[in-house]
Amino acid sequence: MNRDSLNPSINRLVEANRRYADGLRRVETTWAPGLALVLCMDARLDPVQFLGLRYGEAHIIRNAGGRMAEAIRSLAVSQSLLGTAAVAVIHHTECGMLGRSDNEIRDEIRRQRGAAPEGLTFLPFGDLEQSVRDDLALYRGTPFLRQDIPVRGFIMDIATGLLREVH
Amino acid sequence: MNRDSLNPSINRLVEANRRYADGLRRVETTWAPGLALVLCMDARLDPVQFLGLRYGEAHIIRNAGGRMAEAIRSLAVSQSLLGTAAVAVIHHTECGMLGRSDNEIRDEIRRQRGAAPEGLTFLPFGDLEQSVRDDLALYRGTPFLRQDIPVRGFIMDIATGLLREVH
Repeated sequence: MNRDSLNPSINRLVEANRRYADGLRRVETTWAPGLALVLCMDARLDPVQFLGLRYGEAHIIRNAGGRMAEAIRSLAVSQSLLGTAAVAVIHHTECGMLGRSDNEIRDEIRRQRGAAPEGLTFLPFGDLEQSVRDDLALYRGTPFLRQDIPVRGFIMDIATGLLREVH
Repeated sequence: MNRDSLNPSINRLVEANRRYADGLRRVETTWAPGLALVLCMDARLDPVQFLGLRYGEAHIIRNAGGRMAEAIRSLAVSQSLLGTAAVAVIHHTECGMLGRSDNEIRDEIRRQRGAAPEGLTFLPFGDLEQSVRDDLALYRGTPFLRQDIPVRGFIMDIATGLLREVH
């Protein structure tokens, strides 16, 4: 499989969606998300599969690295408007944000695009466990997020598929 | 199915993950994400299913509403560090961010938590097509994101599962 075969046209996704919708059996389902997840955008992560999620049970917030700083708005909405009552933050091995620096990322963007996001921080990290701890601490320091519910942090090992909790 | 049965303990997910990892057959796969998706955290959306995504082909960025303003950092990383060359923004019907206002959301959080995020905007929207157009325009106005690749916007109909493109 070469790079091109993995670079899909959006048209192919639209076609796949048509087949999906054609095959969809709508059943009347009650659903209510109980949980919010924060994890990386990484293309190898399918949380529905690796967590055995059921339809409608989890809000899934994803960004580069799975960083809390960019999940706070969504978590506030998830908890206060939609009633979720548990949070899991999941970072992963082999993450593209691991071992980079803000300056290095900014320079690379400037080199490729001729423009750079001066005000933006990229939230890379040097240590995977520490990044999970930092994100749990940021949650705990945010008073308008629920402090009376389970909030746990994990590292997902890409090689084995296994979660390990960070304490 | 009542609300409690849908409110999983994180422990159940960890148990499901253990079974997943036990059953995982690691095969040597080449993978390279070609595409980045921006969509809502909504618990009813499983983009792997409704877009027929293959392993490793798409970065998936998710937040409340699927808003571009909170996807820019991740898209910059996705494009400049990891080489993706297409973007799809997907909002959806029955979205929790539809028809709300910043003040209403802030007041509700304050009422429930006794604290409110004063500096935070919640990015709600009054019109679904307009929110997609606004997000495409924000992308187009961001010079350090790739302007030479397909960038398309869609609305996903929760009732039918079907995508509709916004032009």
